[in-house]
Amino acid sequence: MTQVIDVYDPSDPRLDDFRDLNSIDRRPDLPSGKGLVIAEGVLVVQRMLASRFEPRGFLGTDRRLGELSDDLERTEAPFYRASAEVMADVIGFHLNRGVLAAAPRPPELSISQVIEGARTIAVLEGVNDHENLGSVFRNAAGLGVDTVVFGLGCADPLYRRAVRVSMGHALLVPYAWANSWPGDIELLRDNGFRVLAMTPNPEAQTLATAMEGLARDRVAILVGAEGPGLHARTMRASDVRVRIPMARGTDSLNVATAAALAFYERARR
Amino acid sequence: MTQVIDVYDPSDPRLDDFRDLNSIDRRPDLPSGKGLVIAEGVLVVQRMLASRFEPRGFLGTDRRLGELSDDLERTEAPFYRASAEVMADVIGFHLNRGVLAAAPRPPELSISQVIEGARTIAVLEGVNDHENLGSVFRNAAGLGVDTVVFGLGCADPLYRRAVRVSMGHALLVPYAWANSWPGDIELLRDNGFRVLAMTPNPEAQTLATAMEGLARDRVAILVGAEGPGLHARTMRASDVRVRIPMARGTDSLNVATAAALAFYERARR
Repeated sequence: MTQVIDVYDPSDPRLDDFRDLNSIDRRPDLPSGKGLVIAEGVLVVQRMLASRFEPRGFLGTDRRLGELSDDLERTEAPFYRASAEVMADVIGFHLNRGVLAAAPRPPELSISQVIEGARTIAVLEGVNDHENLGSVFRNAAGLGVDTVVFGLGCADPLYRRAVRVSMGHALLVPYAWANSWPGDIELLRDNGFRVLAMTPNPEAQTLATAMEGLARDRVAILVGAEGPGLHARTMRASDVRVRIPMARGTDSLNVATAAALAFYERARR
Repeated sequence: MTQVIDVYDPSDPRLDDFRDLNSIDRRPDLPSGKGLVIAEGVLVVQRMLASRFEPRGFLGTDRRLGELSDDLERTEAPFYRASAEVMADVIGFHLNRGVLAAAPRPPELSISQVIEGARTIAVLEGVNDHENLGSVFRNAAGLGVDTVVFGLGCADPLYRRAVRVSMGHALLVPYAWANSWPGDIELLRDNGFRVLAMTPNPEAQTLATAMEGLARDRVAILVGAEGPGLHARTMRASDVRVRIPMARGTDSLNVATAAALAFYERARR
C-alpha cells in the first residue's frame, strides 16, 4: 500500500520527477535520456497501475488520493499529497486532473513478444505527431486491436501528450519497434499475418472487400503518415492495398481516424 | 482578379484583419461581435474561395501568391504581399503556412435550407471543443455527410482552429444552428429523416445493424459530447439508439472518431 507524505514546499527535491511538466519529456539525467512515463488524471493513473509500467511516485491532491484509494493498495510507491497551489508551482501550470504518477521506462518489448497470440495488429510508419499516436492507441484499444508495431519515423508513444491523448492505452496496448524496416514486415508474414497497406489509391480494394476475405486470418494493418502516406518500399512489402471510399473533392482523413475505420471494419466481423 | 499590394510596415492598418492571430476570434468591433473567418494555408484558402465565404483580403508571401495565382483570378479582394518577417510581426508568431485570407461572416443558414436534398446529416450536441468540431467537418466531408446541424452547447465552427483542423471543410459543408432543442429534431423527422442517437449503452443496436435497415432512408446521426453523451431528452427524441461495438475494458472513443465510424457505416452501403 502506498505511503502518503504531505508536502508543503514546492522546491522539495522529492517532487523532482514531476517538476516542470512542459519539458519533462527531456531528462538527460535519466538512463534512457528520455523522461519518465507520466500518467495524468485518475483514469490514466489507474490504467498505469494496471499496466507493466510501475509508478515510483505520485503527486496529487487529497481529493484525488481519495478517488484512487482502492487502486493505491497495490503499490508501494509514495503518494506526495499537496495543495493544488503547490502542485501548480511544481509542475509549472494548473493541472485540472489533480494527480500524476511517474514510472521509469521498462525494457522495450520485441516484435516476437507482442505479436504472440495477437489476431489484429496495427503497424505505423512516419506517425510523428504525439496526438495522432495517442489517438491510434485509444482507437486500437477501443476497437479490438491487440498490438502496435512501429516502423520508421514514429514518435515516442510514452511522451506525456501521447499517453494523455491515448487515455492511458499507450501503457496497456503492447507495442514494439521494428529493428529492420520494412524488413520486419517479412517477420509478420512469417508469423501468418496478412499485411494490408492503407492507401488513397483509387485502384486499391475497399476496406470492406479486403477485410471480408480475411476474417479467419491474422491481419496486420499498415498505416502511413497523413501527407506522404506509406513509402513505396513499404507498400511493395505488403500483401493487399486497401482504401477507404472517400467522397468527391476530399483527399484524406486524419491518420488516427483512417486507422480507426480499418480497425472497425476488422472488428465488425 | 486580386490586386497585389506590397506591404513593408507591420503596423499598416490595412493589415488589421490579420493582426494578433491568437486572439483574432474575439473582435468586439465587428458587427457579429466575433472575429472574421480566417483561412490559413494554400489548401484552406482555396477551399474558402470555393465556398460561400468571400475573402475581403489576403496576407501572404510571394511564394504563396504564386501557388494561388489561378485561384485568385476569381476575387477582387486585395492580396497584401509581405515577407515572412513582416507577417510574423503582424500575426504574432511565425506561420509556416505562409498565407491567410479573412472573410466576413455571412448570414447563418436555416435548418430548412441546409437539409434540402441532403441524404445524411450529422447532428451535434455539446461538442464544445474546436478541434473535435473541426474534425467532425473533415470526417463529414470525406465520408459523404451532406450537412451538419448544431444542437445545444456546440462551439463556433468558424473559430480559427476549427476551420484549420477541418482542412477548410467547415466552410464547405453547410451547417445550421437549431432554434429549439431538442424540438428541432421533430423538424428533421417531418422531413423524412430517421434519427439515430449514438450511445455507449450496450442494449442499443450496433451501428451495422441499424444502418442496414436504413439504406433507403434519409438519416440524421446524433452525436453527443464525449463525457456526458447525449442528454436524456435528446435521446428520447430519437428513433433508434445505436452503439459502436467496443472492446472490453474500454469506455469510449473521441467524439469525432465515433462520428466518423457512423459516417463510414452509412457511406459503405
